[in-house]
Amino acid sequence: MPGSSIGQAFRVTTAGESHGPANVVIVDGCPAGLPLSVDDLLPDLARRATGQSSLVSQRKESDVPEIVSGVHEGITTGTSIAIVVRNDDARSKDYEAIAALYRPGHADYTYEAKHGVRDPRGGGRASARETVARVCAGAIAKKLLHTLHGTEVLAYVVQIGHVRAAIDAPERVHRAAIETLEDGTPNDVRCPDPAAAREMRALIEAIRKDRDSVGGVAEIVATHVPRGLGEPVFDKLKADLAKALFSLPAVMGVEVGSGFACAAMRGSEHNDLFEHTRHDDLSEHTRGAPPPALTTRTNRHGGMLGGISSGMPIVMRAAVKPTSSIPRSQPTFDREGHQASLTVIGRHDPCLLPRFAPMAEAMVAIVLADHSLRQRSARL
Amino acid sequence: MPGSSIGQAFRVTTAGESHGPANVVIVDGCPAGLPLSVDDLLPDLARRATGQSSLVSQRKESDVPEIVSGVHEGITTGTSIAIVVRNDDARSKDYEAIAALYRPGHADYTYEAKHGVRDPRGGGRASARETVARVCAGAIAKKLLHTLHGTEVLAYVVQIGHVRAAIDAPERVHRAAIETLEDGTPNDVRCPDPAAAREMRALIEAIRKDRDSVGGVAEIVATHVPRGLGEPVFDKLKADLAKALFSLPAVMGVEVGSGFACAAMRGSEHNDLFEHTRHDDLSEHTRGAPPPALTTRTNRHGGMLGGISSGMPIVMRAAVKPTSSIPRSQPTFDREGHQASLTVIGRHDPCLLPRFAPMAEAMVAIVLADHSLRQRSARL
Amino acid sequence: MPGSSIGQAFRVTTAGESHGPANVVIVDGCPAGLPLSVDDLLPDLARRATGQSSLVSQRKESDVPEIVSGVHEGITTGTSIAIVVRNDDARSKDYEAIAALYRPGHADYTYEAKHGVRDPRGGGRASARETVARVCAGAIAKKLLHTLHGTEVLAYVVQIGHVRAAIDAPERVHRAAIETLEDGTPNDVRCPDPAAAREMRALIEAIRKDRDSVGGVAEIVATHVPRGLGEPVFDKLKADLAKALFSLPAVMGVEVGSGFACAAMRGSEHNDLFEHTRHDDLSEHTRGAPPPALTTRTNRHGGMLGGISSGMPIVMRAAVKPTSSIPRSQPTFDREGHQASLTVIGRHDPCLLPRFAPMAEAMVAIVLADHSLRQRSARL
Amino acid sequence: MPGSSIGQAFRVTTAGESHGPANVVIVDGCPAGLPLSVDDLLPDLARRATGQSSLVSQRKESDVPEIVSGVHEGITTGTSIAIVVRNDDARSKDYEAIAALYRPGHADYTYEAKHGVRDPRGGGRASARETVARVCAGAIAKKLLHTLHGTEVLAYVVQIGHVRAAIDAPERVHRAAIETLEDGTPNDVRCPDPAAAREMRALIEAIRKDRDSVGGVAEIVATHVPRGLGEPVFDKLKADLAKALFSLPAVMGVEVGSGFACAAMRGSEHNDLFEHTRHDDLSEHTRGAPPPALTTRTNRHGGMLGGISSGMPIVMRAAVKPTSSIPRSQPTFDREGHQASLTVIGRHDPCLLPRFAPMAEAMVAIVLADHSLRQRSARL
Repeated sequence: MPGSSIGQAFRVTTAGESHGPANVVIVDGCPAGLPLSVDDLLPDLARRATGQSSLVSQRKESDVPEIVSGVHEGITTGTSIAIVVRNDDARSKDYEAIAALYRPGHADYTYEAKHGVRDPRGGGRASARETVARVCAGAIAKKLLHTLHGTEVLAYVVQIGHVRAAIDAPERVHRAAIETLEDGTPNDVRCPDPAAAREMRALIEAIRKDRDSVGGVAEIVATHVPRGLGEPVFDKLKADLAKALFSLPAVMGVEVGSGFACAAMRGSEHNDLFEHTRHDDLSEHTRGAPPPALTTRTNRHGGMLGGISSGMPIVMRAAVKPTSSIPRSQPTFDREGHQASLTVIGRHDPCLLPRFAPMAEAMVAIVLADHSLRQRSARL
Repeated sequence: MPGSSIGQAFRVTTAGESHGPANVVIVDGCPAGLPLSVDDLLPDLARRATGQSSLVSQRKESDVPEIVSGVHEGITTGTSIAIVVRNDDARSKDYEAIAALYRPGHADYTYEAKHGVRDPRGGGRASARETVARVCAGAIAKKLLHTLHGTEVLAYVVQIGHVRAAIDAPERVHRAAIETLEDGTPNDVRCPDPAAAREMRALIEAIRKDRDSVGGVAEIVATHVPRGLGEPVFDKLKADLAKALFSLPAVMGVEVGSGFACAAMRGSEHNDLFEHTRHDDLSEHTRGAPPPALTTRTNRHGGMLGGISSGMPIVMRAAVKPTSSIPRSQPTFDREGHQASLTVIGRHDPCLLPRFAPMAEAMVAIVLADHSLRQRSARL
Repeated sequence: MPGSSIGQAFRVTTAGESHGPANVVIVDGCPAGLPLSVDDLLPDLARRATGQSSLVSQRKESDVPEIVSGVHEGITTGTSIAIVVRNDDARSKDYEAIAALYRPGHADYTYEAKHGVRDPRGGGRASARETVARVCAGAIAKKLLHTLHGTEVLAYVVQIGHVRAAIDAPERVHRAAIETLEDGTPNDVRCPDPAAAREMRALIEAIRKDRDSVGGVAEIVATHVPRGLGEPVFDKLKADLAKALFSLPAVMGVEVGSGFACAAMRGSEHNDLFEHTRHDDLSEHTRGAPPPALTTRTNRHGGMLGGISSGMPIVMRAAVKPTSSIPRSQPTFDREGHQASLTVIGRHDPCLLPRFAPMAEAMVAIVLADHSLRQRSARL
Repeated sequence: MPGSSIGQAFRVTTAGESHGPANVVIVDGCPAGLPLSVDDLLPDLARRATGQSSLVSQRKESDVPEIVSGVHEGITTGTSIAIVVRNDDARSKDYEAIAALYRPGHADYTYEAKHGVRDPRGGGRASARETVARVCAGAIAKKLLHTLHGTEVLAYVVQIGHVRAAIDAPERVHRAAIETLEDGTPNDVRCPDPAAAREMRALIEAIRKDRDSVGGVAEIVATHVPRGLGEPVFDKLKADLAKALFSLPAVMGVEVGSGFACAAMRGSEHNDLFEHTRHDDLSEHTRGAPPPALTTRTNRHGGMLGGISSGMPIVMRAAVKPTSSIPRSQPTFDREGHQASLTVIGRHDPCLLPRFAPMAEAMVAIVLADHSLRQRSARL
């Protein structure tokens, strides 16, 4: 059954394999009137791209998106927006030798269990190549959110292997610190703590040379999110955000606000107390009116209470496993059940985290855009 | 916009507030031919119930479900199954004093921000009372899964505060060890490590007496899950499971298999190697046929690869925050923006984990049932 | 797979059989702030009820709805609204004799082909009894539409057998003329042309005495529908309205505006020319602004162009077959494939049209309410 | 909100404007293992194409589809199938003069009312150009249905203006009679009654010369449809089929089986009596087993009872209005509310019916494919 769509009001549907002719995304439900061009998509595509540094896969894709519908004279028309990104540098030959083998940690075995057949070239639909379509949709979602609410969505790396960044206040991290080091050179690992960034970089280089890979954790922060987003019960904002992040390849864990640390805490420590920072005109308060503008002193709740946004920054973290494809010999089995030895060739990331950041931003933005539109029906 | 439904093929829709007349669930898409009666729902309702021990809320609900449709002569007919569970012991008076106040850590403020109005009695729709409807649906899902595949879904507590259980092999934990201690007394905390269970019990009792609450972690294991469940890209099984768990009240984190620990690992350590345990008749292998039956020696992948089930046990963990309602005075604000002091009366769980286990089982079973039916369209 | 829900933004899910304990509807997505009580549901339930005249089924149901969620202090809270209507007068004994027989024109055979089992009592889920749930949801939709836009939805009978009403202008028909004759007696057939109404009444009485049934056509008109409702391509307003009407039992045809008569027309006759009735302040016109308020001189387009509402009255007609249950002996087959003779006992409508009118209004209102909320996302 | 998707299990999502770079369709949910290539799409695309005869629009599109995903080595892999069809012959200049005018009978006014902006070139998304995407999806659906069940879906013209075809038995019409006249020349109008076809052809030619257009009716027949398709209540097969047909441009009416003629009939005439044509082995009959194979002597029910397929041929008719674009001067208004005179240039069909037939087949096939997959969950 269909599994390539996400969102109710801002609905994203994707198609495309790693080594097929193209990846395609249809964004249906974007409101009319948003200025949109290919230039809006290019920055995030560049941040997602392979080949951007020695820390990532060296596949060379030009990643030039073509907007084929839904935009007229530079403005969205309200009809479905289709974007096509062609695949240029698919080296399918690399996969001939392993087409009948199940790579450990990969989806080869499970896709075949599911469908009976699979496209083995580059991992087919299970490749991170498909995220190129998500990042296009995410760029539209970001522009929509920023236009409507001033919302900013940022993701950055907080852990690689045992190296952890020290981030005081997630809501004060800026894009510049994620993308560039103090000396103006690119911050290849996308960790805004420069000391940690350097250590992470060295670790990834060492691991790459050792023909291995390493995992990590990214943090995602969304600021200027209007309060009231998310629906009671199943479509809580935290639930839809978690689904969106878990839908990305290699994600093994997601946490919100205090996350797993909440387990060791008491209610009296964990509850975030409200404070009243703005002077609302209280005389206006009538039934059905929104509540006064409150903030909380602390943000252990990660910007959502009862699954609905509070107006405080949304803070989440996602754990990403070490790349399954490692250029080492590993024992495995073939389609006939015979033992075999496998050495993955292809071009792979020694660590997924640097390129994971823009993917995570895209997914969070898509969910927030969806819930921003859904919220328009919340009141009479 | 609607947020009270989950599932595509096995679709669960709920309604109901904490102190309204009843909670209702409609399960649409359950195949015809499944024997079903109220007796199938009662055990999980009892495990979810308040008042089952001194560790949980003392609200007394009889929780007698009435199946009002979709079953004829004890067999599901394929039409939508509606179940009504009436609320008996709603003490709405407890909430009059705080109807205009925003309880810290609760959804009062965000619901009001969303809808302009809210039902303050017992937390309204944001109360854990709504999970009574989920547990009914989950019991149907469990029976369906067990009938079709022999699937078992178990959840148990692995951490309360700083007390952690030692569980060697999640897939070997049995219901008996979760529900009963060696001496035959009820295992109130639902931790299958008896030493830890006793320590956890003492901790919760102490915290209750201290008018506070405490968080924890539950682990959920599903065995005999057929391989091939889950859809490429957005509706990965891990994504839908994570959404389902995050949709439960108070969940702050979810992890699969190795979880956040993957961040510190290398690919060469993390990859689970396949092994061939059964003797398939390999001569039969033809295009489109499922692959040979492989297992993995280790289960860091938590039973899903590429978001699709591998046939290995599905293992997840969920972090649950300490109950926000604590019987202590806390400062907060009222609807007009004035400061106020709040003492939550009501009847609340000092720790949510003992009752969280059956709720988590229900959500995991609902998602697995949905994907089991969705998988029927995977091949010609 | 689930088939008991309709609507994306205003979503209605139903459950219930003819002779089960109750029918249930959950309305999810109704905005918060709408005054709502049982009194809002009763008038349409009375119009849908059996036993209201000698022209309809004599089953006696009290049809007392209970709103069990989603309303607090008489106002919708934005959470899902569940309504339970219990079945009082189910005479299941009438069906014992025919439980293994397939009634001609009924769903007995096809339900059993689908599910392998069926609830034979009163037709189970295929009975028009399920429309009690739709009418509850429709009453909410009507109130929402009227509050938001002043929309009115009316349905009335325009044909029974060969008797046709003469209706000059559908948009000028009033509720009073549908429900009451000039002499103040109830207009049992719900035809606003009094002469035709009398003739129809006589025809139905004659057919009932002849132990037969008869078909007819209803017209549905919605006025004060805002322009712009409906989505490009698949979810055109006409498409969703047609689906909603065809989802009602016994509907064999639906037409919009000129309907089937369009086949014999030329474009130069069929095109409705615009006229400008209001004096818009044209100086305000900017890009992205809505167009000037135009109407059309004629309404062959039935209020929708390109599947999107034009602001003109929406006019549709639905053809309803003669009741399949007739109190005559008919030959048929039993479950084992043996020939059998069947005489339907039960209590049936000799003509479905009088009770069809409120059902059709409900379905049209549900679709319009859905698209009214969907339209909130159409522009930036 | 999104409106460019149809189907739950076999889900079709489209994008594209008349004069944009391309039209795109994503088919998500097609089972793995179906042989599929561009050659499967070409015949229906040719039947839908402009320029195929003097009776239709003379726009010249090569209509070469590119399958960019979901197929590997000529077999569907179960992942989403994206198809791109580029637009070659868009003459947007024709529309410059009328970009600010509202063409009578067209969607110009309503699209602008909805979105504030619109793409005026060739009617944008409201153009019949978008059906190129539907026909690609329909071709996949047809192949799937034929492979699974031997299902055939045929559509043909039964009325143009006042000329009506005489069709004895819809289920015995063959593709050859629709596409070719007895003398081997193409049957341009797609009416399988050759005498009527000639008369229709002459009528369309005359109307075209008169700078006008004409409406008509198409009949759609699906044979070898398995019994049991369709869901109780809202997703009845007739409801989903009606929606699909009404979603096509210019459709003003849809009827099933007896259609509007049912209004003048009695139950004793209308009920189709069952007959038992095959010799089932009745000894096998057990609870939950499907019923014996019955047919009906007549087919006034049009192949569906209770909205669920009976195994008899599905027979529907759709009324299509005369093309709104006529090469005559018509009065209208511009965006500022000023009166204007409009002469549509562009290239338009004097009668939509000849090209409507393949579009209708596509929509019916998509719905049947969807319900065929949905039916896989109907029983344990």
